Amino acid sequence: MSLLEETVDRMEGADTGAAEAAQRALDAKTKPRGSLGRLEELAVRVAGVRRTPDPGRLRAAVVVAAADHGVADEGVSAYPQEVTRQMLATFASGGSAVCVLAREAGAELRVIDAGVGRPTANIATGPAMPRADAVGRIEEGIALARELERDGVGVVALGEMGIANTTAAAAVAAALLARAPVEVCGRGTGLDDDGLARKVDVVKRALATNRADAADPIGVLAALGGFELAVLCGLALGAAAERMVVLVDGFITAAAALVAALLSPPTVDAMVAAHLSPEPGHGIVLEALGLTPLLDLGLRLGEGSGAALALPVLDAALALLSDMATFEAAGVTDAGR
Amino acid sequence: MSLLEETVDRMEGADTGAAEAAQRALDAKTKPRGSLGRLEELAVRVAGVRRTPDPGRLRAAVVVAAADHGVADEGVSAYPQEVTRQMLATFASGGSAVCVLAREAGAELRVIDAGVGRPTANIATGPAMPRADAVGRIEEGIALARELERDGVGVVALGEMGIANTTAAAAVAAALLARAPVEVCGRGTGLDDDGLARKVDVVKRALATNRADAADPIGVLAALGGFELAVLCGLALGAAAERMVVLVDGFITAAAALVAALLSPPTVDAMVAAHLSPEPGHGIVLEALGLTPLLDLGLRLGEGSGAALALPVLDAALALLSDMATFEAAGVTDAGR
Repeated sequence: MSLLEETVDRMEGADTGAAEAAQRALDAKTKPRGSLGRLEELAVRVAGVRRTPDPGRLRAAVVVAAADHGVADEGVSAYPQEVTRQMLATFASGGSAVCVLAREAGAELRVIDAGVGRPTANIATGPAMPRADAVGRIEEGIALARELERDGVGVVALGEMGIANTTAAAAVAAALLARAPVEVCGRGTGLDDDGLARKVDVVKRALATNRADAADPIGVLAALGGFELAVLCGLALGAAAERMVVLVDGFITAAAALVAALLSPPTVDAMVAAHLSPEPGHGIVLEALGLTPLLDLGLRLGEGSGAALALPVLDAALALLSDMATFEAAGVTDAGR
Repeated sequence: MSLLEETVDRMEGADTGAAEAAQRALDAKTKPRGSLGRLEELAVRVAGVRRTPDPGRLRAAVVVAAADHGVADEGVSAYPQEVTRQMLATFASGGSAVCVLAREAGAELRVIDAGVGRPTANIATGPAMPRADAVGRIEEGIALARELERDGVGVVALGEMGIANTTAAAAVAAALLARAPVEVCGRGTGLDDDGLARKVDVVKRALATNRADAADPIGVLAALGGFELAVLCGLALGAAAERMVVLVDGFITAAAALVAALLSPPTVDAMVAAHLSPEPGHGIVLEALGLTPLLDLGLRLGEGSGAALALPVLDAALALLSDMATFEAAGVTDAGR
């Protein structure tokens, strides 16, 4: 059995017993039932993923997968392709947004060069990569998840960098969800009206040229995706199989998570949507995944910045489950509601 | 001049020059212009409040003002009045939600006993307190703000505890904003339909009995409010006058902030709305203040829990302003948009 097949095979999904026990523990805390809203849902979800009513506190890693895209040649980004490599240097020196936010959250940052300077082929004229390459990158992501698990990480926040990668994500989302390119294409890092029209046209051409089958998620990923998308898809699968929480960032990581969910539906149990970006495809993909974002702050930077920003919310939910006093221990009268 | 008059007199409001300079600094960072959305707005707002383009990192204090309310006798809460005092003990032992969340955020927690066990009079049958008492509590809040400023605090998160205080907040909001009681009354910590109907009726009676004048915010506060609302009103005024950021929590702290804003409109410049609760009056008061909440996570606990949860978002915004590299320093190509 291949690493991918084995991973899909051992995917467990949430433990509903552990989740219910966590909810009972929250109900005994000194607060009206349910009054911590989505923080309670979040703690309960994590209990389900970790398959224990008492998940404790979790170490987090933000993984930024970076790659270049041949489709950048079509002029679909406000920035030149060289910016992918330049940003890799900025990640290394600690000066990018995701570096700052990961530090703030006390999370480790890992940057994966999935193909910077070695772009995929241009999806407007043919497949991005051979199918075997897509599987290989997915398995790299699975291997990384196993490594993170061995290192004691409990939360993996997905991040990405790659000039033109919202175009690839739009093509993947359109193909997998049978949406029109105009519904899933946005301004990315700052396209003007002409740029946006060009991007929609490129995605149309990519779909027409590649004719990828929605029932074959790996085929879609190979035809229309990118190297970082494939690594992130594997990372989501591998992390979920290792009972780690998968924190989804913006549109690109959501598209990668969608491929993972289609390859193995219980993967979704492990996912938490960090935020909603203004990129129109993001909400569409999150809805398809059945995920409601935690934050809605107009972030459209990518890098994993929204996921890193949501880490303290996840931490807070787990701290409440772990550290709040019960009505009984605190001697507070419980109204029972 | 009284302490209150002096405070209103020296209120400066935001420094737009400092705010604009902070926005220019953000525009030079390695990210598309505006791509950090509301985090950029937040950093710019803080720069305006602090009257410097480079506010750095700020120490935060969560202040929980607690008091009892005579109107609890009307059966407007799901919990008995003794819970106010019990929760004071839970704050001291560190087991309540706001304790956990303040610790997570690295913020100091100060609990102010503004009248626990010494309730206001029942607003359904007469004024909550004499006008002089309201002024005295406001000035206590101002004095506390000055003390926090001397201690090096830059952000004051408003919190509260007081069985039946959503009823007082609803009466204050209805009187100040000319709203019907039914629009601003919610289920608080968990009223059933009968309880909610009783609460609406109590607020109607309180408004009819007291006939407070919306043009006299202190009169409204004295007639319909509570001791903790008065302290929080003064804390908001004092903190804004000391150029501190005022983080507003739920409905009760928002009602106190509204009184402060009506006493001195530039106070609003210092305010940040942490979150939106399901309590129907909360959104109405925030809209009147012109504030858009950062978080919307269904929190309806109070205590300052939502404000404490938003502290890491505020921290993140300031860290980005202070620590991100510029395009120039990082050698990244700037598309200029």
